[in-house]
Amino acid sequence: MTPAIPAIPEPAAPSADGHWHNLRLAPGLFKTDAADAAVADGALASIVVQQGQVVWVGAQEALPAQYQGLPAHDGGGQLATPGLIDCHTHLVYGGERANEFAMRLAGASYEEVAKAGGGIVSSVKATRAASEDELLALALPRLQQLLDEGVTAIEIKSGYGLALEHERKQLRVARRLGQLCGVTVRTTFLGAHALPPEYAGRSQEYTDLVSKVMLPALAAEGLVDAVDVFCERIAFSLAETEQVFQAAKALGLPVKLHAEQLSNMEGAALAAQYGALSCDHIEHLSERGIAEMKAAGTVAVLLPGAFYTLRDTKVPPIDALRAAKVPMAVSTDHNPGTSPCLSLLLMANMACTLFRLTVPEALAGITTHAAQALGLQHEQGLIAAQRPANFVLWPVQHAAELAYWFGSKPRCTIVRQGKIFAPAKA
Amino acid sequence: MTPAIPAIPEPAAPSADGHWHNLRLAPGLFKTDAADAAVADGALASIVVQQGQVVWVGAQEALPAQYQGLPAHDGGGQLATPGLIDCHTHLVYGGERANEFAMRLAGASYEEVAKAGGGIVSSVKATRAASEDELLALALPRLQQLLDEGVTAIEIKSGYGLALEHERKQLRVARRLGQLCGVTVRTTFLGAHALPPEYAGRSQEYTDLVSKVMLPALAAEGLVDAVDVFCERIAFSLAETEQVFQAAKALGLPVKLHAEQLSNMEGAALAAQYGALSCDHIEHLSERGIAEMKAAGTVAVLLPGAFYTLRDTKVPPIDALRAAKVPMAVSTDHNPGTSPCLSLLLMANMACTLFRLTVPEALAGITTHAAQALGLQHEQGLIAAQRPANFVLWPVQHAAELAYWFGSKPRCTIVRQGKIFAPAKA
Ligand SMILES: [Zn+2]
Ligand SMILES: [Zn+2]
Repeated sequence: MTPAIPAIPEPAAPSADGHWHNLRLAPGLFKTDAADAAVADGALASIVVQQGQVVWVGAQEALPAQYQGLPAHDGGGQLATPGLIDCHTHLVYGGERANEFAMRLAGASYEEVAKAGGGIVSSVKATRAASEDELLALALPRLQQLLDEGVTAIEIKSGYGLALEHERKQLRVARRLGQLCGVTVRTTFLGAHALPPEYAGRSQEYTDLVSKVMLPALAAEGLVDAVDVFCERIAFSLAETEQVFQAAKALGLPVKLHAEQLSNMEGAALAAQYGALSCDHIEHLSERGIAEMKAAGTVAVLLPGAFYTLRDTKVPPIDALRAAKVPMAVSTDHNPGTSPCLSLLLMANMACTLFRLTVPEALAGITTHAAQALGLQHEQGLIAAQRPANFVLWPVQHAAELAYWFGSKPRCTIVRQGKIFAPAKA
Repeated sequence: MTPAIPAIPEPAAPSADGHWHNLRLAPGLFKTDAADAAVADGALASIVVQQGQVVWVGAQEALPAQYQGLPAHDGGGQLATPGLIDCHTHLVYGGERANEFAMRLAGASYEEVAKAGGGIVSSVKATRAASEDELLALALPRLQQLLDEGVTAIEIKSGYGLALEHERKQLRVARRLGQLCGVTVRTTFLGAHALPPEYAGRSQEYTDLVSKVMLPALAAEGLVDAVDVFCERIAFSLAETEQVFQAAKALGLPVKLHAEQLSNMEGAALAAQYGALSCDHIEHLSERGIAEMKAAGTVAVLLPGAFYTLRDTKVPPIDALRAAKVPMAVSTDHNPGTSPCLSLLLMANMACTLFRLTVPEALAGITTHAAQALGLQHEQGLIAAQRPANFVLWPVQHAAELAYWFGSKPRCTIVRQGKIFAPAKA
């Protein structure tokens, strides 16, 4: 069932250039040159796209004369948001772990699952065994599901290779996915995701390999946009984390962290001191971590899909983050073990339902703040002039519906990298 | 944004007649004439469809000679399941309640929400205010999302009209949806869903209206396949429930019940004594209820979407139901207040994750046992000869993947009422 790799998956996507009219703009997710008040109140709005760039956004009646002759795209009164941004995924891997999921529910112990080849080691094995083309073919339909609901930028981590050649393979596939599908991909090197079996008991040696060999080599190949570590008692220590961060710093690469998911390691504070783009999971985040993140402008990335799958009960400190005005993003954490999730809208719903984010927070979490978590805040996450055209038209009345319905994949019209992807006909 | 009603939404769906080969059959969800063992082990299988009916199912190599010349449909090695069945929905209503969802998250009290026109009363108001065509147009895209993931039979309840003409409108829309989309619709009269505002303090009077006026009239119009009541302290008492059941019995109509969702009312035991098709929700189901359901052959319908949205912590007594061999179904409970859910696959995942159903239980829950909950067990819910052709081909390796991924809407190929609905091209 490995699907074939299409030469060009979206060959005929037409240009989005022209005057998009008869739209409504989702509150808080756009910027106009003129008074925002009129369109914020739901007045009809226009977006003008030229050569794949948004050049004007505003109230329809205020459209400058120079744009009035452009080809018209009728938005039909639909609601426009920026393209969605999935800022934390492990999308590229071999195999899946449905069998492990089934075994656990049938009552198998962790030991029995491990004996049957389950756990993260099974993903490492399958990823190492797969060719680059196979990994690409496996990741494509997963990516396609996210693109179908309006994702225009996605972060993809390595971390199932855990050896230079296999980490390279994952990152190369991530880059190829971006080219193939015409979507912004940010790659993150996560060599320090887990200790590979062949390094059992030699954590420091593996950390040396990650920071002295793997990272410099992959960075030199242009495969690394950011560097991540899984800082946890079952993964890498605070000292090992800092070693990897220092290597990243030496290379001029931004860092981020899987922080305080299962316990408070004070990893977030460390990451913030290295100017981290984001700290992710953070169920056990401390007051100190919040203060350091606030000072550094680090984004808090919430991952309700893993929380849900693990039946976790420790909710991230949302009230404290809100009070400190730390920007909160929301992501799928797509991965085969703890979050085999393929919908960012569902994550918005879970962020509201399970974490009690407000609807505007959840929507900023999958757009504006997710862009910031990737360092893309000047390109994506907001409908505004002087940015590449990445926006989505939704057949809904209210922005709140995007977080309210769940399990829904509305038939939206997507403008991605200046091209139109219209929904299939009913 | 009310969409137009298409004259025929799926005009060009081709016939599924012919020989479907190169398939694998999902374990437990098919019946062959010959030895099931071969196909259960994953050998390639065939399904033969003639005049919209399945006439043969079995191992591909055992295909009888008489079918070998039929037009061939290549399944490409995909996994075949019966069409999915959503056995408990409130799909037809006016308005939605996204604003209420947003208000609650922003900290509004129940009182403030009620003042702003929220709660079930708002759905009643909007449903009453809408015309039949408007209700149809609103329900269509919701139904379409369920059809897109392979639903071939769905139950639709009334219960937002709460007056004869408006309950009629809901049930007529349910019937029209079935005709328009070519999908099996079972209607359920739920006049006893909530006390309408104009009957405040006059519960017995309203129960008389439901059982003596509304139900007989709507049944006479052929609009009622089953009768349901919301039996709860905040809704209808056990005695009122029984009054409605007696009216149903007098008309020869099967009953079902919203039972023990918020407290144990012993409604399930009562319903079982009336030979109920199903008891639904049942978080607080008692041992006695289980025993009566078992004796009556009543299906336990689990609704994890409402459990999730309400952040309930009281899980239905799954172990006891399993031990008693009470069949368990799983449904969306689609409704605008407590489960604005549009994916039955997500409900299978939630039934596993939140209720700890095994994967085979969850998959039987959205097929075989859901069919039984609707009295459709001889027509749907199993791939077998002598049944209308309703099956789905999934691009997955293992059946467990259907419950493992979440937020996923795989591009499946659907055979519904003998017609093919293929996925949109990538
Ligand atoms: Zn992660
Ligand atoms: Zn219900």
